[in-house]
Amino acid sequence: MSIQSRSDALAADTADPLAGVRAKFVLPPGLIYLDGNSLGALPAATPAAVADAVTRQWGHDLITSWGPTGGSREGQPSEQQVGSQGWWALPAQIGDRIGALVGAAPGQVMCGDSTSVQLFQTMVAAARLRPQRRTLVIDDANFPTDTYIAESVARLLDLRLLRVAPGEFAPDEDTAVVAYSVVDYRSGELFDTAAITAAAHDAGAIALWDLCHAAGALEIGLDDLGADLAVGCSYKYLNGGPGAPAWAYVADRHQRVIDLPITGWHGHQDPFSLAKNFSPADGIERLRIGTPPVLSMQALASALDVWTGVSVADVRQKSLALTDLVIDYADRELARFGVEVITPREHERRGSQVALRIPDALQVMQELINQGVMGDFRAPDLLRLGLTPLTLSYADVWDAMAILQQLLQP
Amino acid sequence: MSIQSRSDALAADTADPLAGVRAKFVLPPGLIYLDGNSLGALPAATPAAVADAVTRQWGHDLITSWGPTGGSREGQPSEQQVGSQGWWALPAQIGDRIGALVGAAPGQVMCGDSTSVQLFQTMVAAARLRPQRRTLVIDDANFPTDTYIAESVARLLDLRLLRVAPGEFAPDEDTAVVAYSVVDYRSGELFDTAAITAAAHDAGAIALWDLCHAAGALEIGLDDLGADLAVGCSYKYLNGGPGAPAWAYVADRHQRVIDLPITGWHGHQDPFSLAKNFSPADGIERLRIGTPPVLSMQALASALDVWTGVSVADVRQKSLALTDLVIDYADRELARFGVEVITPREHERRGSQVALRIPDALQVMQELINQGVMGDFRAPDLLRLGLTPLTLSYADVWDAMAILQQLLQP
Repeated sequence: MSIQSRSDALAADTADPLAGVRAKFVLPPGLIYLDGNSLGALPAATPAAVADAVTRQWGHDLITSWGPTGGSREGQPSEQQVGSQGWWALPAQIGDRIGALVGAAPGQVMCGDSTSVQLFQTMVAAARLRPQRRTLVIDDANFPTDTYIAESVARLLDLRLLRVAPGEFAPDEDTAVVAYSVVDYRSGELFDTAAITAAAHDAGAIALWDLCHAAGALEIGLDDLGADLAVGCSYKYLNGGPGAPAWAYVADRHQRVIDLPITGWHGHQDPFSLAKNFSPADGIERLRIGTPPVLSMQALASALDVWTGVSVADVRQKSLALTDLVIDYADRELARFGVEVITPREHERRGSQVALRIPDALQVMQELINQGVMGDFRAPDLLRLGLTPLTLSYADVWDAMAILQQLLQP
Repeated sequence: MSIQSRSDALAADTADPLAGVRAKFVLPPGLIYLDGNSLGALPAATPAAVADAVTRQWGHDLITSWGPTGGSREGQPSEQQVGSQGWWALPAQIGDRIGALVGAAPGQVMCGDSTSVQLFQTMVAAARLRPQRRTLVIDDANFPTDTYIAESVARLLDLRLLRVAPGEFAPDEDTAVVAYSVVDYRSGELFDTAAITAAAHDAGAIALWDLCHAAGALEIGLDDLGADLAVGCSYKYLNGGPGAPAWAYVADRHQRVIDLPITGWHGHQDPFSLAKNFSPADGIERLRIGTPPVLSMQALASALDVWTGVSVADVRQKSLALTDLVIDYADRELARFGVEVITPREHERRGSQVALRIPDALQVMQELINQGVMGDFRAPDLLRLGLTPLTLSYADVWDAMAILQQLLQP
C-alpha cells in the first residue's frame, strides 16, 4: 500500500502489527526521533533493570552475582553463594538472543567489548584462517572504524589492503578475507550478502560481515548465508543504550580452529584454573576477552526483552513501508526544492534509513531539530533519516516529512 | 601503633582520618567485606548517577548527550543541541581523575575497554617502541590475562617471551619490554617498581606496569617513576562497579610516536571527519578505541567522587595498619592452627591484601562466608583477604580475625 496522505498513514498505523511495541519505549513527548540508527531509544523496562543491577546485584550481592561459572570462579569458593543473576553467563546468553535476530543458531554469538575491538579480533582471526593468502578486501566507503582497523590488521599481518566497492567485488586466489558491511552507513544501501559470500567462498576466501546497520533492522540469516564471521553493535536497532557492548559471530565450523589475537583470561578453556599458559575454550566461549561492562550489559539484556513476540519479518516489512513513505514523499513533494533521494529504490537494495541530498542540509537539519524532528546530518549535504519500526508510527514519519516540506517551502 | 585488642581497634577507628568515608558506601548490614580487591563496594551516590544516565541522558536527551566533541559529532549538526553531560569527554575526564590517584599529570590516562584489551593495546605499542629488540619479559606468576596476552603479542610480533620473577629481572640489550604487575594478585607482594623501571631504562627497554591491585590502594607515582606505559582496572579499589572500564597510561613523551594496533575511529585525529584513512590523534586521545560503555562509565565517574578530600597517603597508611593487624593477629593467635602468612612482612613489599596459607582453606572460607565474612579463596590453600581502607574499619577487621580464630579453634 502506498501512503499518499496522512489518512493513509493513520490507516497503516491501525493495521500495523508492531503498533503496540511503541509502548515498550520511553521517548520525550513531541519528539519525532529519526536517529534510532545512531542511538536507539530507551526501553521502558531498562531503568528498573539497571537499578536492580546496581543496587541489588552489585550493592547487595556483590561478587556472588557472578554466579555459577562451571569452575571455581575467582573469589567464589562454593556454589552455595551463587546468586540468581549469573553475570558470568550474560555474554553468551545475550549473544544467543542477538543470534536469534540475525539468523544464527545458539552457540555462535558472543557479546562484549566495542565494535572496533570485535572487528580487530575477528579480522585477524579471519586472515589467520587463510595464512597462504595475502589480500584483505574492504569497502573504501565503509564506516571509518572498519577501514581503520583493516589498515592496522593489514600492517600487522603483512597483508595487501584492497579497497573495492561491494558491487565490484571479484576475489581471486590471493583473497584471504572480504570484510564488508551489510548496509552502507551513509546511503542506506543494502548489499547483496548472498552473492558476495558465495563469490568469496568460490574463491576460497573468508567472509566477515559488519551488521551494525542491519541487526534488528532487517532479516539476515548468518547461518543460511554461510557467513564465516560477523560483528555488530547493540546500540542502534537493538536499543541497548549508549556504548552497549558489541557482539561477534563465529560460525560453528570455525570455532575450534580460529586463532584470536586478544587472548583475555575469560576465553581460556578453564579460566578459573588460573593456568599459566593460554588454551582457548573450544566453543564460542573462546570469543570472550576480559571482564565485560556488566551494567551496560544488563541494560542491553533488558532491551532485548522488547523483541519477545516481535517478528523480524514484520520489522522488515514496516521498515520498507516507512522508507517507501519517505522516498515517495520526497519524490512527490520535495524534488522541486532540489531534494534528491540517494538511497536505492529497490527494496532488496535498501536498509532501514533514507539519505536525502539537499541544499543547505546542515541548516535544514538544525531547523528540523528545533521543530522536534531529530535526524542525522552527513557532511557535506545529506540528511540521514533512520526509520526504526519499533518506535516510529507511519503518522510520525508522515508528520516529519510534512515539517520538512514546510521548511523548504519558500 | 600495634593493635592487640578490640579496644585498640576501636581507638584506631576513633583516630582514623578516613572513618567518615565509609558512609559514602552501601554494604549489606552485618557483612564484613574482605573482597573489595575483587569487586569494590557500591558507592552510595552511584544508583542515582546511573539512573540519571539512563533516564535523562539516554532516554530524554538521546544523542545530544554526546555533547561537544571538538568536531562535528556524528549525528550532531550543531552545538545548539549539545547536552550538559558530554559523554564524548568522559573517557579522558575519568582518565585524568584516575591519573591523579596514580601520580600521572593530566593528559596521560585514557579510560575505556577491559584490562585485557588495554594490555594488548599497550603491550604491542610498547614492543613497537623498541623494534630492534626481540625479548618481552613477563612474570610467570602474574595474573593469567597478563600472561595470556603476552603469549599472543609475542607470537604476533615474533618476540621471545622470557618468564622471570620481578625480583630476578636482569634486562639485556635484547630486552624490548618488561611487563609486570605492581602487586602480585595472589600473595599481595608489592614489587620494587623504582628499581625495575630503572633497570629496564638502563638497558634501553620499555617498562609497562599493571596497576590492577595498586590503583586506589597505595601511593604510586607513574610520572616520578618514569613509567612508560601502564594499565589498570577500575572495579577493585576504585569501586567502579562490575566490569567497570579499565584505563591505560602513556607517558607524555611517547604519545606522539606510539603505534597502537586497535585503531578504532575514536582515536582518529579528527574522528568526525569520517576520513578514509587512519591518522592517530596527537595526544592521549590516540588511546581511544570505539564507543565506550557509557552507563558503566558513568557509574565509575560517580565512584571517583568518593575520592574528593581523600588522600592516597592516608589510604596507604591505613592499608598498612589493617594488613599489620591481620598479620600480627595471624602470627599471635592462628599460627598454632597451622596458619602461615604468605604476604611479605616488610611494608615496602606489601600491597593491600593478606594471603594466609591454611589447611582446608576452601572449607574455612565457606564457613567464614556463612558467618558474614566474605573473602577470597585461592587454590589450593590460600585465603586472600582484601583490606580496603575506604570501606573497612579496624574493628571490622579485628572481628573478622576473631571469627576466623573461633572457626579454627578445635
